[in-house]
Amino acid sequence: MKIDIFTLFPSWFEWFERQRHVRNAIERGLRMEYVDFRAHTPLSGGQVDDTPFGGGAGMVLRVDVVDAALRAHYHADDPVELRTRRRIVALVAGGPVLEERLVAELAAERELTLLCGRYEGFDQRVVEHLASETLSIGRYVLAGGELAAMVVCDALIRKLPGALGHADSPREESFSELLGGAPEYPHYTRPAEYRGWRVPEVLLSGHHERIREWRLQRSGELRERQ
Amino acid sequence: MKIDIFTLFPSWFEWFERQRHVRNAIERGLRMEYVDFRAHTPLSGGQVDDTPFGGGAGMVLRVDVVDAALRAHYHADDPVELRTRRRIVALVAGGPVLEERLVAELAAERELTLLCGRYEGFDQRVVEHLASETLSIGRYVLAGGELAAMVVCDALIRKLPGALGHADSPREESFSELLGGAPEYPHYTRPAEYRGWRVPEVLLSGHHERIREWRLQRSGELRERQ
Repeated sequence: MKIDIFTLFPSWFEWFERQRHVRNAIERGLRMEYVDFRAHTPLSGGQVDDTPFGGGAGMVLRVDVVDAALRAHYHADDPVELRTRRRIVALVAGGPVLEERLVAELAAERELTLLCGRYEGFDQRVVEHLASETLSIGRYVLAGGELAAMVVCDALIRKLPGALGHADSPREESFSELLGGAPEYPHYTRPAEYRGWRVPEVLLSGHHERIREWRLQRSGELRERQ
Repeated sequence: MKIDIFTLFPSWFEWFERQRHVRNAIERGLRMEYVDFRAHTPLSGGQVDDTPFGGGAGMVLRVDVVDAALRAHYHADDPVELRTRRRIVALVAGGPVLEERLVAELAAERELTLLCGRYEGFDQRVVEHLASETLSIGRYVLAGGELAAMVVCDALIRKLPGALGHADSPREESFSELLGGAPEYPHYTRPAEYRGWRVPEVLLSGHHERIREWRLQRSGELRERQ
C-alpha cells in the first residue's frame, strides 16, 4: 500500500513512523510519502493560503495551491481526473465520521491520498473538484488536518498484514465483527490481586468456554451502556 | 491550565508543541508534562505490561505500574483518592466518544491527567480504581492512547485564551453553539475564479446580511445531510 499525505508540515509526521506497528508495515512494503504544499505553490514567497471571501477568522488553503501540488506530485495533466481512479480524501471537521468499517475499507486500497488543510480551512473548490471525498475523525474541531491524517493512518495500518506482529486472523477487538461491533471486553493481567482488587475468578479458571462466555457478556453490557 | 500525560512514549509528543496554537497557549501559561510509566515501574527490567489473563493477543498495561506512576508524580499516599479532586482520563477505544461539548468542559478544568495505554490494553482495575473516567476519540481502534491524547489536547487547547491568536469571542465553527451544532459553512478565498470554478457571487457582494444568511443556510444544509 502507498499513502501520500499532502501537508504544510511534513516534519510533524516524523514520530509517526517510530511506532512499532507502522515500522512493521513498512518492512512489509507499506510506503508513506509526505508532500509539502509549500514546495509546489505557484505563488510568490511560499504563499499557500489567504483570507476568506465574505470575512471571518482564520486562513483558507487556496485551490490553486492544492491543484498545483497534486499536478506536480502525480505528474498529472489534470488533477480533476485523478480522483476518478484513486481516493483523494480531504480531512475536514464537518465530513463523514471515520468508523471501523470505513477504516477496513481504506486499508483495502492500494493507494490513498490524504489532504491536510488547516482543519476547517480548505477552499471549498478543493472539496468540490479535486478531492474524491471528505472525512472527519469526530465531532470536534482540531487545529489542522495533520492529526486527523495520523489517526486515519494509525487505524488503517493496524489492519495491514503483519503490522501487529502476530497471526493475521481476525481479532476480537472493539467494534470488530467478532464482537458484533461492540466495545471489547475488559482485560486483566498480573498481579491477580493488587491492593485487594482481584481479577475476576473466571479468567484464572482455565475454562476456555466459560472465559469466552464471560467476555462476550461483558462486551455486550458495554454496548448496552452506549 | 496544566495537562499531565502519562505514556510509555514521551518523545512522540515533541512535534505537538511545535504547533502554533499550542505555542501560543504555552506562552499564555499552559503547562504540559509527560510522565514516563517506565521511569516509575516497580518491576525489574523496566517491565510495564504483561499478557492477559484468560488468553488473547496483545499486552496489557499493569495496574501496579499505573498506580506507582500516579503515586510518584503526584506525591500521593494513595492514588485512589486523587481522582476525587482531579479528572484522570483513561483513553480507551470503547469509552464515551469525545465531542465538542466535552472538549469545552475539559478546557475549563485547571488540571487534567491523561493516561495512555496501548489503546485497548489497560488492566481494567486502572479504569475501575484509578481513573475518574474513560474517553475515546471515535469508534475505531488505534495502536495506542498517545494519538488519542494528542487529539484531546489539540481540540481543547484551541479553546484556551489566546491560542488562536485573535479575539477570543465565540467563533462560528463546526459544532459551535453559534451554528446550532452544525458543521461550518464552506469557505472560499482568492482567486475568485480558477479554471472556471467561481466563488459564489454573494461572498463577493459585500452585503454582510446576505452573506450571513447564505452561510447559515449552507451550514444547515450540511447538518441535514448528516
